[in-house]
Parts: sequence; C-alpha cells; structure tokens
Amino acid sequence: MATKQQRLPREVRERQMIDAAVRVFSHSGYHTASVEEIAEEAGISKPMVYIYLGSKERLFTACIHREADRVVEAVRAAVHPDEPPELGLWSGLRVFFRFVADNRDSWAVLYQHARTQGEPFAQEVSAARCRVIEEVTRLVVAGTRLPGGERIVTERDAEILARIAIGAADSLSDWLLEHPEESPDSLVDRVTNLALVGVERYTTGDAQPF
Amino acid sequence: MATKQQRLPREVRERQMIDAAVRVFSHSGYHTASVEEIAEEAGISKPMVYIYLGSKERLFTACIHREADRVVEAVRAAVHPDEPPELGLWSGLRVFFRFVADNRDSWAVLYQHARTQGEPFAQEVSAARCRVIEEVTRLVVAGTRLPGGERIVTERDAEILARIAIGAADSLSDWLLEHPEESPDSLVDRVTNLALVGVERYTTGDAQPF
Repeated sequence: MATKQQRLPREVRERQMIDAAVRVFSHSGYHTASVEEIAEEAGISKPMVYIYLGSKERLFTACIHREADRVVEAVRAAVHPDEPPELGLWSGLRVFFRFVADNRDSWAVLYQHARTQGEPFAQEVSAARCRVIEEVTRLVVAGTRLPGGERIVTERDAEILARIAIGAADSLSDWLLEHPEESPDSLVDRVTNLALVGVERYTTGDAQPF
Repeated sequence: MATKQQRLPREVRERQMIDAAVRVFSHSGYHTASVEEIAEEAGISKPMVYIYLGSKERLFTACIHREADRVVEAVRAAVHPDEPPELGLWSGLRVFFRFVADNRDSWAVLYQHARTQGEPFAQEVSAARCRVIEEVTRLVVAGTRLPGGERIVTERDAEILARIAIGAADSLSDWLLEHPEESPDSLVDRVTNLALVGVERYTTGDAQPF
C-alpha cells in the first residue's frame, strides 16, 4: 500500500490531504480535529500526512491558503476586464456569495474562526486577505480603464473602490451566513436594487451629495 | 494618599485607569505593557488597579469596550435621523475616519491587534462589532423612513445598507492607516465623488445594472 501511495505525484497527494483536512476541520473545528481523522478521511497513513504537511497546525494553514486561492480564482474567472465595471462588481459579488454559501462550513472554520485564533492563523488569514485585496484592486484598475486606455477614475480611487467592494462583500458574507433563508443571488439582487434606489434619489434631486 | 484616592467616585477612578491603560497599551502593545506602568500612568497604586479592574487582561478588555462605546457615540452624535440618508452616511463616515485617524495608535492596538489575539479579546471585539452593527442598523432604519413614516427601502434592505456601510468603513479605515498622507475628510470626498461617478454612469447609460 505504501508503494501504491508513492506512485501519485506529491502535488496530487497533497491536494487529497488538504481536501480531507478542509472536510474534517469544517466538520469538527480546529481544536477537535485530529491528524489521525484527516489521514483516515484522505485514505493515507498518519506518518505520511506528517511527512507531507508536518503538523495539524501546518495542515490548517495549508487549508486557509488553498481556500483563499480558490475564492480568488473564482472571482477572477467571473470578472472580465473588458466589461463595464458595474457588471464586474455584480459578477464578482455573485460568485463570492455563491462560494461562501456553497462552502458554508469551511468558510466558518477557515475564515471566520481562523482570523480570531491568534498566531499563526491570524497572520495566514491576513496574508490571504492581502492577496484578495491585490487581486481585486488589479481587477478594478483594469475594469475602470476605457478601451482607449483612458481611466474612468484615478488609480488611487480604483484602489478605494476595491477596498469598498471587499469590505462590503466581507460584511455581507457574515450577514448571508446569519440568514440561511437568503440565497446568494437574491442578496446580489438586493444590492443592485439598492444601488438603483440611490441613483434614483440623486437623479430626482431627493439625495444630497454633501 | 490612599484616603484622598478613595474620595473619587468609582466611575471616575475607573475612567482614569482606562484612559491610562489605552495610552499605555497603544504605546507599548498588549504583551509589553504592564499593570505597574498603567498604575503609574494613572497616578494610582498598583494594588488599587487590581482591586478595580482585576488583571491586565481585564484592563485590556475594558479598553476595547470603552473605545467601542466612544466610536458608537461619535457616529450617533453625527447622524441625524431626520436628515436624508446620504447625508447621514457621509457624516457617519467622516466622523468614523476622523476617530480612527485621531486615535491611530489605540485603534491599531485595540481593534486591529485585538481582533487577531484569540480569546477573550477576539470575543470582546466581536461583541463590540455587534454593538456597532446594531447601532448603525438602527440609524439606517430611522434614516430611510420618510417624515410621513413611509420607508425608502424595506427594513431588511436597511439592514443590508448598514452592513455595506460598516464593511466599507472598516476596510477603508485600514486603507487610511496605511496612507497617512490622506486625511479623513479627503477620503470622504473621494468616496462621495466616486458615488457621483457611479450615478453619472447610470444616468448617461454607460453603466449596466445587471
């Protein structure tokens, strides 16, 4: 059996372990989960898990990292820089909320829980957040450039738009998890409708900008 | 001297200790700060600090709680429910960013640092955040009701607006601390201008809502 296991490339083997670890941590929480349980879930021997990923702590860190990559990849795939920025915003939010709703358990453990667990997890979550900020800023900068290269907003304002989008998405994802009766798509519909209510208030003169 | 100290009401004495603790924690960080240093800063004996607030941990928790109260109070005082909701949003953001900029050191320790420190601080920060969410939701619900009692948006959408505002404010406050060259007021100007760019894109037909 050890021979058969070694035939798989390291990358595939690690992915299996992290998949299993995400399931076990999501189900049992960090403190209750054991490396033994994760090894069993992955169909891999416990010593092999230690050889590959070292410790429960390193497994958990690897899970945070991998899930952050997945959410960044999902958002990147949904947003096309040649579309109008509003479309990018709504598509990005939609995909993000779907990701959170589809990965409700792992999100709660790997993100909501990990960020409050002290080091080294808080640092890993913080690094993941920085990657998300960089990626979203890149998307907003690309998305607010007109086909001719001209900019709708300055680079600094594009950064600020990215921070607003990330902060709002983050805060709304907590709300979504607290309201399981609400679907990710209906939440995006609410947000787009609220944007239109805002536009209408400005255009009818009901709103006061300053 | 002990007699003289005891003449002050408990509330005043506690406020002195918490003021001193905020200064010491902000300056030295949680781990380096000592109860002795806080007692000295407050001009109170170390045993007295222990009698009043128990431990360094409880002192820190009291600081988080008190600073959260201060920020909620500042936002509440700036937002008038009989003003249009946009005005309330810009006033609330302005006061919040000024608070963060004026309390740069204590904000970094009591909020940014505390939320990643594990229990019991993460729980205290989380409880503080819930108080902020409740208060801002209350303000948005009140602010989106027309004088006749009619609502601009439903109660649930008002909740969502509150979450968006809090998430964006939170995320932008991190940005503000990373950009000391930017003033709180110029950040609010940027955000209001971006809102107007958005409105203009919709009204000129450049934007696509869905």
